[in-house]
Amino acid sequence: MRRTIGSMLLAASALAAPAHADTLVDNIKGETIAPDGTLQSFAAFLFDDSGVIKTVYRPGDKLPKPGRKGYQFHIDGKGRVLLPGLIDAHGHVMQTGYALLTLDLSETTSLSDALARIKAFAAAHPDRPWIIGSGWNQERWGLGRFPTAAELDSAVGDRPVWLERADYHAGWANSAAFKAAGITASTPTPEGGAIERLADGRPAGVLVDKAQGLVDKAVPPPTPRDDDLALTTAEADLARRGVTGIADMGTSTRDWMTFRRAGDANRLYLRIMAYAAGTDTMAEIAGPGPTPWLYADRLRMGGVKLFLDGALGSRGAWLKAPYADKPDTHGLSLLSETQLGNLMSRAAMDGFQVAVHAIGDKANGVLLTTIEDLSHTYHGDRRWRVEHAQIIDPADWPLVTRIAANGGIVASMQPVHQTSDRLMAEARLGPDRLKGAYAWASLKQAGAVLAFGSDTPVELPDPWTGIAVALTRQDASGAPAGGWRPEERVDSLTALAGYTSAAAYAGFAETRFGRIAPGLRADFILVDTDPMTASPEAIRKTHVLQTWIGGGKVYDAESPAGGK
Amino acid sequence: MRRTIGSMLLAASALAAPAHADTLVDNIKGETIAPDGTLQSFAAFLFDDSGVIKTVYRPGDKLPKPGRKGYQFHIDGKGRVLLPGLIDAHGHVMQTGYALLTLDLSETTSLSDALARIKAFAAAHPDRPWIIGSGWNQERWGLGRFPTAAELDSAVGDRPVWLERADYHAGWANSAAFKAAGITASTPTPEGGAIERLADGRPAGVLVDKAQGLVDKAVPPPTPRDDDLALTTAEADLARRGVTGIADMGTSTRDWMTFRRAGDANRLYLRIMAYAAGTDTMAEIAGPGPTPWLYADRLRMGGVKLFLDGALGSRGAWLKAPYADKPDTHGLSLLSETQLGNLMSRAAMDGFQVAVHAIGDKANGVLLTTIEDLSHTYHGDRRWRVEHAQIIDPADWPLVTRIAANGGIVASMQPVHQTSDRLMAEARLGPDRLKGAYAWASLKQAGAVLAFGSDTPVELPDPWTGIAVALTRQDASGAPAGGWRPEERVDSLTALAGYTSAAAYAGFAETRFGRIAPGLRADFILVDTDPMTASPEAIRKTHVLQTWIGGGKVYDAESPAGGK
Repeated sequence: MRRTIGSMLLAASALAAPAHADTLVDNIKGETIAPDGTLQSFAAFLFDDSGVIKTVYRPGDKLPKPGRKGYQFHIDGKGRVLLPGLIDAHGHVMQTGYALLTLDLSETTSLSDALARIKAFAAAHPDRPWIIGSGWNQERWGLGRFPTAAELDSAVGDRPVWLERADYHAGWANSAAFKAAGITASTPTPEGGAIERLADGRPAGVLVDKAQGLVDKAVPPPTPRDDDLALTTAEADLARRGVTGIADMGTSTRDWMTFRRAGDANRLYLRIMAYAAGTDTMAEIAGPGPTPWLYADRLRMGGVKLFLDGALGSRGAWLKAPYADKPDTHGLSLLSETQLGNLMSRAAMDGFQVAVHAIGDKANGVLLTTIEDLSHTYHGDRRWRVEHAQIIDPADWPLVTRIAANGGIVASMQPVHQTSDRLMAEARLGPDRLKGAYAWASLKQAGAVLAFGSDTPVELPDPWTGIAVALTRQDASGAPAGGWRPEERVDSLTALAGYTSAAAYAGFAETRFGRIAPGLRADFILVDTDPMTASPEAIRKTHVLQTWIGGGKVYDAESPAGGK
Repeated sequence: MRRTIGSMLLAASALAAPAHADTLVDNIKGETIAPDGTLQSFAAFLFDDSGVIKTVYRPGDKLPKPGRKGYQFHIDGKGRVLLPGLIDAHGHVMQTGYALLTLDLSETTSLSDALARIKAFAAAHPDRPWIIGSGWNQERWGLGRFPTAAELDSAVGDRPVWLERADYHAGWANSAAFKAAGITASTPTPEGGAIERLADGRPAGVLVDKAQGLVDKAVPPPTPRDDDLALTTAEADLARRGVTGIADMGTSTRDWMTFRRAGDANRLYLRIMAYAAGTDTMAEIAGPGPTPWLYADRLRMGGVKLFLDGALGSRGAWLKAPYADKPDTHGLSLLSETQLGNLMSRAAMDGFQVAVHAIGDKANGVLLTTIEDLSHTYHGDRRWRVEHAQIIDPADWPLVTRIAANGGIVASMQPVHQTSDRLMAEARLGPDRLKGAYAWASLKQAGAVLAFGSDTPVELPDPWTGIAVALTRQDASGAPAGGWRPEERVDSLTALAGYTSAAAYAGFAETRFGRIAPGLRADFILVDTDPMTASPEAIRKTHVLQTWIGGGKVYDAESPAGGK
C-alpha cells in the first residue's frame, strides 16, 4: 500500500504519545479563576507526561491511587496555596534580561561595600567579557574623592569594568577598561569632559561627561551569546516571582531569533506571547498571518505593537486639553489618524491582533474611534488591545462599551504605574481630568477585559505588588491613606484574573494556559500567601515557593538555582 | 475520567502498534554510493514510521514478511532503478521559486499561442494579484506590429498583466495594469520612452524603454504570501527532478523566515542546508553557532556564504594575469585578503562552515592560501567550501592537497557551467590558462571532495544534465566531439556521489541523508534510467517516476499534482 505524508504523520503522532505516566498534585489549597470570573477552589489535579492537565479534583472528590491505573508521580503541596502560573500582560523580555545583566550599585554604602559587590558580581558572571554597572555615588560613601582604577583593579583585574555614576555624568573604569579603550597618559582630554589623572598623567579611574565616550565606544556591542544570556536571565527572574507567561510588547526580529534559538535548543520555558515591533517586523517574522503556537505553547507571534503617543512624565502623552503644568502643549501623536488606521488595517486584514500604546486622553479617544471604525470591516473575535489605557476621557467610556460588544476590547494596564505616577499625573493633568486616569474599575464596568502587567523593566515584574496596588491604589508606604481615587480599586477576583485568566485571554491563550483546568498546560505556583484572603500588605510580601511550567519545575525557593 | 488531549493520544498509541508500522520497499534495482565511494547495490529496504531507514537488503537476502512481526506498508518498485534522493550542492531556493512564478513566453510562436499561454497561466494561478512575465517577441510571431492591451484583455481581464519583451526594452500591459498604474490619455510620455497610443490618446498596450517604469512602479512588491508560494513552487520543481535536498547559498533573514514558516506549518519537505548571506545575517539568525537540524533534518543553518570575486562572463572574476580579451583588467576582488580572513575567522571561531564564492585563479589562490593560514587556528573537521572553484592555477593544486589533509576541502562545482561557459571561457582566458578551468578530475585527484550543483536559477536545477555533462564535458548537442578537455571528466561513481553522498558530506549531513543506509532518512527516487550503465544521452533524458522524502511521497509522475 502506498502511504502519504498524512497517514505517516498520524501514525507518527501516535508514536509520539507519552508513556502512561501521570502526576498527581494534592494536599493543596487550589484557587483558579473560571471563565465567568468566579473563583474555583480545588484540592488536587492530575497532569500527564506532556504537561497537560487531565483532571481537576474538587474538595471531597475521590482521588486516584498510585499505580498503573492511577498516577506514577506525586507532588505533595504540603497544604499550601496553589495558583495558576501568573502572566505579565505587558513586558519587554529582552530588555528585562539586559537590565538584570548589569550591576546596580545604587544601594552601596561604602567603597569597600561597592568593591565587594563588584567582585561578587564578576565572580558570578565569569563569561561576561566586560562588567558593566551603574549607581555609585562617592558622596553617599563618605569618600570625599573619586574612587580609583587601582581600587577597582583590586576587585576585578582580569576583565574591563565600566561603572557609571548615579547621575550618569561620570564613569569609573579599571585598568583593563583603559587598556581596551586605548586610554593612556598621552590621551588628550576631550572637549566638554575631564579625565582624572595620576601625577604621571595616566588615567586615575574616573572619566567625567564627554570623556566617558572614550570608554563607551570600547564596550563591545551585545552578541547573540549576550542575547541568549539575557533571555535566560529574564526567564529565571520571572520564574522566581511566579510569572510563567508574558506578553512581549514590541518583539524585534533579533528578539524573535533569540526566542527561537531557545526553543530550538529546548531551553525555552517561559510562555511568550509576542507582539511585533511594528507591521514590517510582523510581516517579516510571521508572514501572512500569526504563527502557530510553537514549542508546546511557549511562543507565538499573534499580533503587532504600535505606538500612538508618548509618556506622561515627559509630556509626550497626547492630551485633549493642554498640560496643566505646561499650557503651551497638548503632547504629541506619533501617528496621524490615517496612519494609525492603515497600520491597524494591515495587521487586522491578515488576522493579527492589534495592541496600541495609548497614554493620553486624546490618544485613547482617537484609538477607540479608529477601532470602532475598523470593527465595521474586521469582524469576529478581535480583542483590540489598548496598552496602558492610562487616561481615558469618561466621555469616551461608551466607545469602550460598544467595542466590547463588537470585536472585544482589552485594557492592558499596569497597576504599579498608578502609584509611581500619582503625583506627576496630578501635576500634568490638574484636578479635572483625574476621573479618567488609571480608571480600572470604570473600564471594567464599561466592558473592557482588564489584563494586568508591569511594563518590565520600567517597573519590576512583581505581580504581588501589582495585585496589592490593584486592591488599594496605595504605594508600599501605604500612601495615600485610603488609596488614590479608591473608587477605581478592583476586587481580589479581578486582580488575580488580571494576572492569570484575563491575561491569557488577552493573548488568545485562554484554551492553553492561565487556569488550572483539564486540557490546559500545567503551569502553577505554590505560594505562602492566599491572595483571596490575605491583607494587601501580606500579598505584597508573598513568597513564591515553587514555579512549574508545563509540568516541569523551573523554580524552587529551597534550591533557587534549580531551573528546568 | 474526563477525556483530554493526553488521554486521546494514549488511546491512539494503544491502537497503533507502533513497533510494527514499517514500510518495505522491494522489487527494485537499488544503487547508492558508500562512504568509501564504491557502489552499493541493494534489492530492498525497510523504513519506519518516522521515515528513517531500518534495514537494507542485498540481492539474495531474506526479506521480512507482511504483518505484525514484519512490515505493515509495502512499496513495489516494479523492478525499476531506485537511487537516494539527489542533492543540489549549490542553489538559490527562493530565487528559483520566483523565477518559476513568472510566465516565460520565449517559446511562443504566435500572438494566439501567447494569449492562450497567458490565459492558462492566469487560470493556473488564481491567487496572483498581478500576472508577470517576459520573453515575447512580435517579430517571431510574424505579427508586424506590437500587440495591444485589448488583445491581452481578451486573455486576462480580471487582473493586471505586465509582460516584458524578450529584449526587456518594451513592456506589454492590459487595461487593468494601466488602471492600476494610473496611465491614461493624459499621461505625458516620459523622457527617453514611448507610449503606444490609440487614436484618442489612450495607451494602446506597449510601453517602450523609460515608459516601462510607469507600470513597473505599480507592480506590488513580493509579500510573505508570495515568498511562501515561491518556496512551495521551488520545492515542487525540485521534487519532480528528483532533488530532495539543496544547499541554499546566501540565505537572507527573509528567506530563513520563509523556510521556518513552512517548517512550523509542517509543509516543508525539501531538505535545506542554509548558508547565510554574510556573517551579520549568520549571527542574527543562528547566533553563537550553527542551528540544530530542524523539522526532522529538513533545515539547518550550518554556515555562511561569502563572495571573493565576480563572474567570468562580466570579467568580474579575479585573475592572476589580465583577461585575454581585455588586457587592461584582471577583474576585481570584492574583499581584501584581510577582510576575507576576518570574515572567515568570525564564522569559523563559532563553528560555522565557511563557503566562499571564488571563480578566477587569483581569487581561488588567495582563498586557498587564506584557508591554509586559518587552518592553523581553527582545527578539526572544517570542510572548507570553495564555491564554483572555476579556475584554479595548477600551481595551487598542492594547496588543495594540504588543506584536504588538514580540515578538509569541498570543491562545490556546477558541471553545466562548463558547457555554458566553454566558448566564453576560452575567449576570456586564452589557451594557456584552460588547464585549471573546471578541472573536476584534477581537483578530486588533489584531494578535494567534489560536490555538484546547478546554481539554480542561473541554470536549471536538473541533476541529470549535470551528471551527463560530468561524464562527457559535452553539451546537449554533443559538442565538442569527444568533450572539452576530456581529461577532466569524472566517472559515473564520482558523478552520482557529487549529487548524493558527497553533496551531503559537503553540508555535514552524511549521517542524515544522501545514501540508502540504516539510520538515514528515507529519501529516494524511482527512475527509468540507470546512471551507472546508461549512455550520457540516455541519462540526460532520465524520467523521475517518484520522489520520496523522509518516507513520504512528494512527487509521482503518474499524478504530478500529487505529492504532499
